[in-house]
Amino acid sequence: MQALTPTDTSQIDPVDFAAALIRRPSITPIDAGALDTLQSALEDLGFVCTRYPFGEGEDRVDNLYARLGTSAPNFCFAGHTDVVPTGEPSKWAHAPFAGTVKDGQLHGRGAADMKGAIAAFVGALSELLGRGWTPNGSVSFLITGDEEGPAINGTEKLLKAITEAGEVIDHCLVGEPTNPDAIGDMIKNGRRGSLNAKIAVHGRQGHVAYPHRALNPVPVLMDLLSRVQARELDTGHEFFQPSNLEVTTIDVGNTAHNVIAETARAQFNIRFNTHHRGDDLIAWIKSVIADVQDGFDGTIEANLRCTGEAFLTEPCGFTTIIQNAVEAVTGRRPALSTSGGTSDARYITHYAPVCEFGLVGATMHQVDERVDVADITTLTKIYSHILQDYFS
Amino acid sequence: MQALTPTDTSQIDPVDFAAALIRRPSITPIDAGALDTLQSALEDLGFVCTRYPFGEGEDRVDNLYARLGTSAPNFCFAGHTDVVPTGEPSKWAHAPFAGTVKDGQLHGRGAADMKGAIAAFVGALSELLGRGWTPNGSVSFLITGDEEGPAINGTEKLLKAITEAGEVIDHCLVGEPTNPDAIGDMIKNGRRGSLNAKIAVHGRQGHVAYPHRALNPVPVLMDLLSRVQARELDTGHEFFQPSNLEVTTIDVGNTAHNVIAETARAQFNIRFNTHHRGDDLIAWIKSVIADVQDGFDGTIEANLRCTGEAFLTEPCGFTTIIQNAVEAVTGRRPALSTSGGTSDARYITHYAPVCEFGLVGATMHQVDERVDVADITTLTKIYSHILQDYFS
Repeated sequence: MQALTPTDTSQIDPVDFAAALIRRPSITPIDAGALDTLQSALEDLGFVCTRYPFGEGEDRVDNLYARLGTSAPNFCFAGHTDVVPTGEPSKWAHAPFAGTVKDGQLHGRGAADMKGAIAAFVGALSELLGRGWTPNGSVSFLITGDEEGPAINGTEKLLKAITEAGEVIDHCLVGEPTNPDAIGDMIKNGRRGSLNAKIAVHGRQGHVAYPHRALNPVPVLMDLLSRVQARELDTGHEFFQPSNLEVTTIDVGNTAHNVIAETARAQFNIRFNTHHRGDDLIAWIKSVIADVQDGFDGTIEANLRCTGEAFLTEPCGFTTIIQNAVEAVTGRRPALSTSGGTSDARYITHYAPVCEFGLVGATMHQVDERVDVADITTLTKIYSHILQDYFS
Repeated sequence: MQALTPTDTSQIDPVDFAAALIRRPSITPIDAGALDTLQSALEDLGFVCTRYPFGEGEDRVDNLYARLGTSAPNFCFAGHTDVVPTGEPSKWAHAPFAGTVKDGQLHGRGAADMKGAIAAFVGALSELLGRGWTPNGSVSFLITGDEEGPAINGTEKLLKAITEAGEVIDHCLVGEPTNPDAIGDMIKNGRRGSLNAKIAVHGRQGHVAYPHRALNPVPVLMDLLSRVQARELDTGHEFFQPSNLEVTTIDVGNTAHNVIAETARAQFNIRFNTHHRGDDLIAWIKSVIADVQDGFDGTIEANLRCTGEAFLTEPCGFTTIIQNAVEAVTGRRPALSTSGGTSDARYITHYAPVCEFGLVGATMHQVDERVDVADITTLTKIYSHILQDYFS
């Protein structure tokens, strides 16, 4: 049985640790030593660490599950050490992987999304364990190197693998940057689902002066898009804004003003709340396509892919613990929100109640990604508060 | 006063003369000696020739007006010596400017469109004048080097210039290749007008997960296109098929499935009959744009250009002369039609009744453009018939 007493080391400073993680240029699927850095710190704190590499060759991604303690409940902190590319490094005020602290800000790719939050969680544990606190249960880390990439060899497989190994997660907190403007703004207690559709309508090329000899795919595509756009998917939900469909592109690429093109292509994306499931939306889109295809002599191709179902963690004791911790430290009670993009919480929800709370996301994925050093300190205190309250 | 008796030369063989014209690689705006070749032949036949170059520098295009006789009526043969580019010459079975005759076919760029018809007209006159026939009036040539190009320095300016010089055309025959499949198929006694529209809708870029922060231009463009498409312009006309609008392209060029694009562009073309005028259609499109713009926070740009009004030469003695001539030579009575693209007849209609009849257009503008040698001979006989009937 694993001893709960941590190795007696000096405490880990969360800002220093965030900078150390940023110095590992872990652009998906490259790890660059980021998980080693984290694992080393966790082992020093007494965690038992297991690596779960998935995929082969260029697709291989490493993942980490670490646990302190063996008893229930198991409070899990989830996140990712991989980051998005930097773009042109010369456009950055500070080298993107230098982890520079300047004028009260920590600069670097991953500072906000989400190495800063991982460091805050490690910092909170280090401080708590350093002063003799022990969880009345277990604390675990579920960390992937494939969140910003295709997410095929990441959290979803990791959850399956640890479950097969007998692990049970009771509650999970994801450290994604959930605050739009200032720390304390927002907890995410759900996410909308996302569905991508790629449509190609093939007609028959010809001269505009002889339209009866051609078959213009453009009006057919417009009809299809108009039909899917016309549906009011829903009027929203107690915890969700209305589901929404956006046509993101239409492309014909015909430069000749007197020619009817052969093929017209489009893409649209649906962000949907828990009134819908991906399969139902796909069946509906297929039925619209069948209606449009009826009487059309050309062909319609569709590639329909649901990249994540909608999920919701309804307000409960767990969400209240997080809200209380944020309010205790910041003086502001954060909103529960299901807005924004998807995250790996869409996989975790099938295993345990999950919420997300991290740093301010304003600069994530941008040039000069950065966070206030003070926000890392604040987040560390919030995570400490959550852990103490959860296990009290 | 101009003598009507031609110089006593041997007759001009229309096939040889067509080949000679093809050997002048007169890709718009280059003349390459094509008009000189024609002018020389016409001067031998007694024509008084005047050149009308228009435009400066690279845009300079030469044009020719030639007249035999000074009295009315003035029967004008109109056409162009310029040709479209060849594409990759190595793809041609015979060099595109060699004027090769092989297996009963004359090969080369311009064989059908329309050096073959010019040669047939010259051949018909040569034969008629050679045996002592004289027109009871005048015969003229109105030949441009800018029909396949922008048509800015061609027939329209040439008509204005000769009119200012006191010239009057009574009837005009354009030698465009009007027969879809076989000589004798079709006379064009009118053409639809053509209007090109380029539309750009500018919104505001953003993430699909936050559509309220973005302004998607795609639905606005689709709304605009749906509105213009929805109008039944007319149900046709005694001599015209219904006016028709084709959306030829829509282009957004957005490759990111999670991004709302800033700009969406489209083009459409209207082929319209004499129920409409270009200015009225442009005013209507502008009113549709104004309706769509109303309440839309982005901007809509439109470039609307009418490249030719619809025109009609109603069946009359002139059209009957042409139909009778075709029937006398081929045994088939040709249809009067207003189908197909535009031609320079759209300018001539403002000066005189105009019809078009020439060779078979099946290979025009294509690799291996070619015509049957027998068709050139047939067309020469038809033109001869027309001239004799017209002046009888």
